[in-house]
Amino acid sequence: MKFDIAVMKGDGIGPEIVDEALKCLDKVGEKFGHEFVYDEVLIGGAAIDAAGTPLPQETIDACLASDSVILGAVGGPKWDGLPSEKRPEKGLLGIRKALGLFVNLRPAKLYAPLADACPLKPERIADGLDLMVCRELTGDVYFGAKHRDEDGTGHDDMNYSIAEVERIAHRAFQMARQRRNHVTSVDKANVLETSRVWRETVERVAADYPDVAVDYMYVDNAAMQLVTNPGQFDVMLTGNLFGDILSDEASCITGSIGMLPSASIGETNLGMYEPIHGSAPDIAGKNIANPIATVLSVAMMLRYSFDLASEADAVEAAVNSVLEAGHRTGDIAKTGERALSCSEMGDLIAAAI
Amino acid sequence: MKFDIAVMKGDGIGPEIVDEALKCLDKVGEKFGHEFVYDEVLIGGAAIDAAGTPLPQETIDACLASDSVILGAVGGPKWDGLPSEKRPEKGLLGIRKALGLFVNLRPAKLYAPLADACPLKPERIADGLDLMVCRELTGDVYFGAKHRDEDGTGHDDMNYSIAEVERIAHRAFQMARQRRNHVTSVDKANVLETSRVWRETVERVAADYPDVAVDYMYVDNAAMQLVTNPGQFDVMLTGNLFGDILSDEASCITGSIGMLPSASIGETNLGMYEPIHGSAPDIAGKNIANPIATVLSVAMMLRYSFDLASEADAVEAAVNSVLEAGHRTGDIAKTGERALSCSEMGDLIAAAI
Ligand SMILES: CC(C)[C@H](C(=O)O)[C@@H](O)C(=O)O
Ligand SMILES: CC(C)[C@H](C(=O)O)[C@@H](O)C(=O)O
Repeated sequence: MKFDIAVMKGDGIGPEIVDEALKCLDKVGEKFGHEFVYDEVLIGGAAIDAAGTPLPQETIDACLASDSVILGAVGGPKWDGLPSEKRPEKGLLGIRKALGLFVNLRPAKLYAPLADACPLKPERIADGLDLMVCRELTGDVYFGAKHRDEDGTGHDDMNYSIAEVERIAHRAFQMARQRRNHVTSVDKANVLETSRVWRETVERVAADYPDVAVDYMYVDNAAMQLVTNPGQFDVMLTGNLFGDILSDEASCITGSIGMLPSASIGETNLGMYEPIHGSAPDIAGKNIANPIATVLSVAMMLRYSFDLASEADAVEAAVNSVLEAGHRTGDIAKTGERALSCSEMGDLIAAAI
Repeated sequence: MKFDIAVMKGDGIGPEIVDEALKCLDKVGEKFGHEFVYDEVLIGGAAIDAAGTPLPQETIDACLASDSVILGAVGGPKWDGLPSEKRPEKGLLGIRKALGLFVNLRPAKLYAPLADACPLKPERIADGLDLMVCRELTGDVYFGAKHRDEDGTGHDDMNYSIAEVERIAHRAFQMARQRRNHVTSVDKANVLETSRVWRETVERVAADYPDVAVDYMYVDNAAMQLVTNPGQFDVMLTGNLFGDILSDEASCITGSIGMLPSASIGETNLGMYEPIHGSAPDIAGKNIANPIATVLSVAMMLRYSFDLASEADAVEAAVNSVLEAGHRTGDIAKTGERALSCSEMGDLIAAAI
């Protein structure tokens, strides 16, 4: 099969890690007889520099015309002084909205060969750690109306409609059926009206999935439970803001944020796949970044956008075998272990596919 | 000196732990020649049961007439089904607002004798763990206008005025001067207008404190840094919502949430002091709760509301000596260690004062 992929390498380490992911994807194409055609377009700081805007219309058009989108990472100190409308992050928020990517899936799991890197004591993860944050991505206070009063007071409208909550809740329950049949919905319903709409709606949707266990947790408690007993979570369903915070917390509890992919999807098969980590400007251009999160993002793309489960399995198995053989980039190497370069790691994974 | 204290024992374990804290306070009075007069009033579930509202006017009046307020904890499953206007939490939010308590101080520190209970690996806390969350408590999306549209969409207005940010920021910088001269201000300025007002205002206030180092961090990153490197924080300055989440995360990273006090203060000396933990309905009435967080809240009251630093030191030293002697309540006892009852622990601390 032939797939058109829009590629946004972005800023910082973005270009290096995406190159390694495409190297692996090409190997999948070779091995399984698919053709992946890349259309490279600009976003974030790179787009600001080239076109004066973090999200050129051309980029949106190319993404919409593609079968799927790969993103490296956006942002860096170079653009931090710009007014908010012109900043790299605006490109990221804009493309999520333009493509209707309302589901953000962020798996956080412990890779057995990297268990040492987990910041938690072993007894805290005796039950394992393999959860999926299912974060709503195109609503909430992120996209509500913003303004300043004349006296300088800043406002953001936090809101969720019933339809927005319904569609993300269905995705979470469906996801739970492919995992361990358990959804934990996180909100702040003891304080926020938006959260009360969220909770009531999730309760209604839950009734359609009697085979899936459901819990409701306040966000402050969820932030604690992630540290004290992360093994209790399977699918964590949250809004955009709480999901931003909790998915980052969950990912660093694994101890290897350089390993974690993400998928943003909508109503169609078109999805956007990117590592959870940022653009790491401090190590950009040095060929020392860890490309694994981006490689695993490509595996998610194969699985969710192209329905190529065996191909996705092959990529994930290749990553595991390389880790089990003891290969490490600097971020996951222990003192004294030799650290591979970004491209060496990409080569090894591609070879293992 | 004579002090009038409004006492709200609240729900669940509230009455038991407050009784032990008052036992210690009486001992302080005896030893240092002060008179503490208690006026017991109702809040939360207890007030709903007795008066049909979580915050009777009488309670507000008694608190306003007092020199300071002690609170146990509010809430429990018994009242969870009530409409939001009538729930125990409404009493808590209402009293914070009615007393103008815009500063919430939540220290999170590791007690050396309890270091084993910390969920993080020892190398993560090599730099220690002793931070103070300084959370704004009477603004933000907590108190913004709330409504539902006709189609059922829920809305909450997130907002901060410049004056609100200024007054909490000054408190944080002043607090930092009494600690390690470092403030980390947490926001989501890459997305929220409210956060941009927050950050600009903190930047202006920071200029008045050239001796205090200041960092700005996004809330998602802060949630990660608390797990990966909590020793980097001294005073963490945040809004109401982010402070709710991060202070709970910070407290459970110490591994002993039953040990952590909090202070809510405003423009005057009148403050409200309460443990960080909740009402723990599952163990209520069994005399097994840990009263230390409430005892330490009383120490904060002596220090911040009554300006009695030696008395506060005496209470804190008593707690330390009891812990160092190996005494534990069930929540902090290791397997095989004898667990004291709530009142035994109170007796020991009072005796050590
Ligand atoms: C860069 C920022 C706008 C973004 C977000 O908050 O969504 C990032 O933190 C993320 O989680 O992808
Ligand atoms: C009970 C709830 C309303 C409250 C809050 O969110 O402020 C609590 O979580 C706290 O932090 O004191």
